[in-house]
Amino acid sequence: MNYFFKVKSLEEVMALTGKFFPVGTEKTPVFNAFSRVLAHDLVAKKDMPGFKRATMDGYAVAADSTFGASESSPAWLDIAGTILMGDIPKFSIAQGQAAKISTGGMLPKGADSVVMVEHAELIDELSVEIYKSVAPLQNVIDKSEDFSEKDIVLSRGTFIRPQEQGLAAGLGFTHIETFKTPKVGIISTGDEIIPIEEEPVPGKIRDINSYALSGFINEAHAIPISYGIIKDDPNAIKKAVEKALEETDMVLISGGSSVGTRDFTIEVLSSLPDTEILVHGMSISPGKPTILAKVGKKPVWGLPGQVVSAMVVLKIVVIPFLNRLKGLEHLDRTIRVPAKLTRNVPSAQGRRDFVRVELIKKENLLLAKPVLGKSGLIRTMIHADGLLEIGEHVEGLEKDTMVNIILL
Amino acid sequence: MNYFFKVKSLEEVMALTGKFFPVGTEKTPVFNAFSRVLAHDLVAKKDMPGFKRATMDGYAVAADSTFGASESSPAWLDIAGTILMGDIPKFSIAQGQAAKISTGGMLPKGADSVVMVEHAELIDELSVEIYKSVAPLQNVIDKSEDFSEKDIVLSRGTFIRPQEQGLAAGLGFTHIETFKTPKVGIISTGDEIIPIEEEPVPGKIRDINSYALSGFINEAHAIPISYGIIKDDPNAIKKAVEKALEETDMVLISGGSSVGTRDFTIEVLSSLPDTEILVHGMSISPGKPTILAKVGKKPVWGLPGQVVSAMVVLKIVVIPFLNRLKGLEHLDRTIRVPAKLTRNVPSAQGRRDFVRVELIKKENLLLAKPVLGKSGLIRTMIHADGLLEIGEHVEGLEKDTMVNIILL
Repeated sequence: MNYFFKVKSLEEVMALTGKFFPVGTEKTPVFNAFSRVLAHDLVAKKDMPGFKRATMDGYAVAADSTFGASESSPAWLDIAGTILMGDIPKFSIAQGQAAKISTGGMLPKGADSVVMVEHAELIDELSVEIYKSVAPLQNVIDKSEDFSEKDIVLSRGTFIRPQEQGLAAGLGFTHIETFKTPKVGIISTGDEIIPIEEEPVPGKIRDINSYALSGFINEAHAIPISYGIIKDDPNAIKKAVEKALEETDMVLISGGSSVGTRDFTIEVLSSLPDTEILVHGMSISPGKPTILAKVGKKPVWGLPGQVVSAMVVLKIVVIPFLNRLKGLEHLDRTIRVPAKLTRNVPSAQGRRDFVRVELIKKENLLLAKPVLGKSGLIRTMIHADGLLEIGEHVEGLEKDTMVNIILL
Repeated sequence: MNYFFKVKSLEEVMALTGKFFPVGTEKTPVFNAFSRVLAHDLVAKKDMPGFKRATMDGYAVAADSTFGASESSPAWLDIAGTILMGDIPKFSIAQGQAAKISTGGMLPKGADSVVMVEHAELIDELSVEIYKSVAPLQNVIDKSEDFSEKDIVLSRGTFIRPQEQGLAAGLGFTHIETFKTPKVGIISTGDEIIPIEEEPVPGKIRDINSYALSGFINEAHAIPISYGIIKDDPNAIKKAVEKALEETDMVLISGGSSVGTRDFTIEVLSSLPDTEILVHGMSISPGKPTILAKVGKKPVWGLPGQVVSAMVVLKIVVIPFLNRLKGLEHLDRTIRVPAKLTRNVPSAQGRRDFVRVELIKKENLLLAKPVLGKSGLIRTMIHADGLLEIGEHVEGLEKDTMVNIILL
């Protein structure tokens, strides 16, 4: 087969995320929902907290009973009772009355605010002096102040952080509908690649990529599954891809960065039914010889075999597609921090460069120091804290330029 | 018992991490090692890659055979053979000779560099024209260029990212010695707290904290275990703490932010054998009524019951202790990004404030917009992207100040 492919820009590739859709949904217990993605809008079934709640230890009062109170002229209130935690108060408060209350307690009828214990002094069992006035709703959370019934509190596609877990629990959801966690198949190819438990003779090299790639999949809260090392044989690769496609939601074929084996990957992918080759080469460095195909509904990637290239492509290009499968609304979850370049960095026009940098703290500033060393060296990734992205239309960056660094 | 405790600063509390030690170690398969912590220095057993390796498709040559070569005056070399991927070349290269080689292939004896295929043209089966000279080691990774035998490549206490997984695999470690993953027991206390599956009557509130706290434990790559909701009864709390201490490495008691129940927590902790109360009050807001005890060798926390306070204390104070148990060398793994304040923020002197902020992208800048709303509202944490830390000696911050935001 003959493909006439134009190398695609990063933006063109990112636009292709729209060709894929989230893997199904499932019920997830809220206790285990961290890092999952919400599959429907979450609606408050009731007001939250649902009653007037004290946020301080002190005295529940009607605010106007305290107006004008001060150290020199305290307000004198009668104690109408004590509110027990978790109880509905059995009495109400009138003008000139107060009730002892603890943080989290429910205000009695007639009370609209709480005087902090530090601003009051109990005179005897029946009376208290107030040294500071309070305003209505001071030190109180109102019935629907957190959320009102029927409010949409979280929307579909939200990444669930700890606070979202807490909120869902507070609203009474023991389980929430989330997107399923995608499984990602990893196939390592190349006649020179051997299992890591073997001792390499010269010419052979251990399978680094299966392990590094699995880490990025874990980091993105998905499930990596290794399909081992396959020799440079189109039939064997095809079989492995078919198996991985049956069992997972996305497939990574690593290796095949040399011209010959890259052709194998295209040949294998083209021979699968219902395949569309979407990307055959990207204008980024490292990572140019990247292939993306849509096989049925699933993305299949041909990644460069060179370990640093494979990692950069995974982090920058593949993970947003994985986030799409995860159902996330925002596909770019990279964190960028500003830093000052320690030296000039050359860059070729017409391609997006990703330069490994070390981040060094210096007073209130981060310095970005490019990691020296050939791009095939894994050590350059070990020393790197982040990636400096240099645009297509930039010829290079000068020392002391402020840049944004993508954290690794 | 009577304790005369001085409220401790954040620095004083952080210094107490030194009183605790990592939980034991165990062997972990490298494929599953993401987010684990290395328990010993990792030493290269051999040079890596172990042989001269091509980083480009092209022609392996002795560099001096190409000196002076140009488009107008190409060097003419004889093809000595083709190198198959993964093979040890059975021939060597003399001056004036070249061998076809693919990315990742092993250079034959006599060759020290690779001419890219783009800078050469095959004339016939036996000869090639070279249009650009190469320097020794150009487009080649030398035998020990990544790592030399006996190099310490990763040190004890390193957080394992994807690239560290790849490196360990490349060095032939199928398993690495890592610290065990700590288990964290979570006990929710308070007569007003009910299980999330129940419908709260006024005065009661669902157990938000067990769920929110579990999320932060997961985020820190540890294992949360819930011990349910315990009533405000010292005996019941003691039993739950004893059980949690038997089964986990650290215990969180959430609730008890009102004066009375805080006394319960101290009473319970003091009654346990081999206990030292290390912290009883911290000069941070929110989070002042925080308690830390060392029971045997394990940290036990009394956290504020108020949901936002509990979350801030967990993120800022507790997680560094968890990182200590995990064996991490660097205990502060928070990420801080600079942003510009959108309004004045008041702050009391003598305490460290943590203000929830929303981050808004505006051109090349992040704006930090304080989230309005009482601190007891979980919604303020839902709307927050980060925390603004304001020092003890700062009276407040002015609009447009550049600040560092701790990402949530």
